[in-house]
Amino acid sequence: MASSSLLNYISIVLVDTKTPGNIGAAARCMMNMGLSRLVLVRPRKDISGDAVKLAAGADEIIEKAPRFQTLKEAVTGCGLILGTSRHLGRQRKNILTPRAAAELSIPLLQKNTVAVVFGGEVNGLDNDDIALCHELISIPTSDEFPSLNLSHAVMIVAYELFLAAHTEAHFSERTLAAASDVEQFYHHLQSTLEEIGFIDKARPDRMMFSLRQLFGRARLDEREVKILRGVLSQVDRAAKNVKKD
Amino acid sequence: MASSSLLNYISIVLVDTKTPGNIGAAARCMMNMGLSRLVLVRPRKDISGDAVKLAAGADEIIEKAPRFQTLKEAVTGCGLILGTSRHLGRQRKNILTPRAAAELSIPLLQKNTVAVVFGGEVNGLDNDDIALCHELISIPTSDEFPSLNLSHAVMIVAYELFLAAHTEAHFSERTLAAASDVEQFYHHLQSTLEEIGFIDKARPDRMMFSLRQLFGRARLDEREVKILRGVLSQVDRAAKNVKKD
Repeated sequence: MASSSLLNYISIVLVDTKTPGNIGAAARCMMNMGLSRLVLVRPRKDISGDAVKLAAGADEIIEKAPRFQTLKEAVTGCGLILGTSRHLGRQRKNILTPRAAAELSIPLLQKNTVAVVFGGEVNGLDNDDIALCHELISIPTSDEFPSLNLSHAVMIVAYELFLAAHTEAHFSERTLAAASDVEQFYHHLQSTLEEIGFIDKARPDRMMFSLRQLFGRARLDEREVKILRGVLSQVDRAAKNVKKD
Repeated sequence: MASSSLLNYISIVLVDTKTPGNIGAAARCMMNMGLSRLVLVRPRKDISGDAVKLAAGADEIIEKAPRFQTLKEAVTGCGLILGTSRHLGRQRKNILTPRAAAELSIPLLQKNTVAVVFGGEVNGLDNDDIALCHELISIPTSDEFPSLNLSHAVMIVAYELFLAAHTEAHFSERTLAAASDVEQFYHHLQSTLEEIGFIDKARPDRMMFSLRQLFGRARLDEREVKILRGVLSQVDRAAKNVKKD
């Protein structure tokens, strides 16, 4: 597959973008680097003016960008969801560099779609949206001045994807599970773990976040999701029987 | 030497920038990636407003940026001058990728200063300015939409410099000749080659450009410039004697 059509399997998802000019500049960066699928989550209604100006001819991909009210809807069907985060670089393990993220993504593209998600200008992605991401990307920056403009963050990731798409890659034959199936698995997992008392129903988030990170990194395929759901169903039945006893 | 102080040996030189906002955005990118030395050639007089706004706190490096009327003055004393060019990628050999340029530059930094030069938004660097550059960088882009915003071009180069500065490098012990000394050598070379009839006095540019590319790639040190000047002086004397005969 030509590298140019490969990149059509990647979506750039902008969540809560406040400044229309940043959407325009991001669209221009995307087209510079051969990316064409822009997805907008909770965009401002009035995307024009600065957005079109700064898109410098790339405004067509803004016009055709699907819009959603939640990130969860926006990434349904994606095999791999990568969230960008500037704040967590030092706090969490398994944060990918843009280069590593690109090298991870490209080999998946013949069989899967990948979403790279960018949060709003001021606060980035919130914890609920981060929880939906299978892995996180952090862009290396100076400690003294780490705050990147949104479109420059998009450019760095797009540039690494473009380079990785143009080098010889060993393509994976695996078809990853759709994000919505993985989400259903997580719901099932949480409910089972609550049922057996492994996690506190009142405060499930922290443990679920860790489990999401773990399974996200594993990049589950459809068969594996079925296997895990089967395991959970078996646990559910056992737990019910224990209760009956 | 710590990587942060290493990057102080690199100047980002913006030539003929038309849009103040681009200077501001470029300054922000520089500070994001640990670069602090901005140099302006023929800037508009009124750099404020958008420049300060888009600098997002990086305006201090605009304020302290030295300003020059010619690129030649701006790069006096630099050991390596890298020009960025978007138009020549397919036409000339020995064009560096940003990554290769960064990997070339960083090992030189303990003993030398490096300038990376960016032309104006519409036309890029003109031929006279390109001739002053020892090597050229071309940023890989989609063929369909190759026109990068200036600040995004700065970001890609700055990002690669930042990454290269933070990997282990084998530092060169060579002190490269100052750009002004190399320029004097080129003048001498041209005059000698004209004198002996190797190049046409009416049209020296094309051949001189090729010779500049050749010696630029060689990265001459002070001693080598002296040797070459010595050779030229010897040729000059021989040519004179021939004329006398």
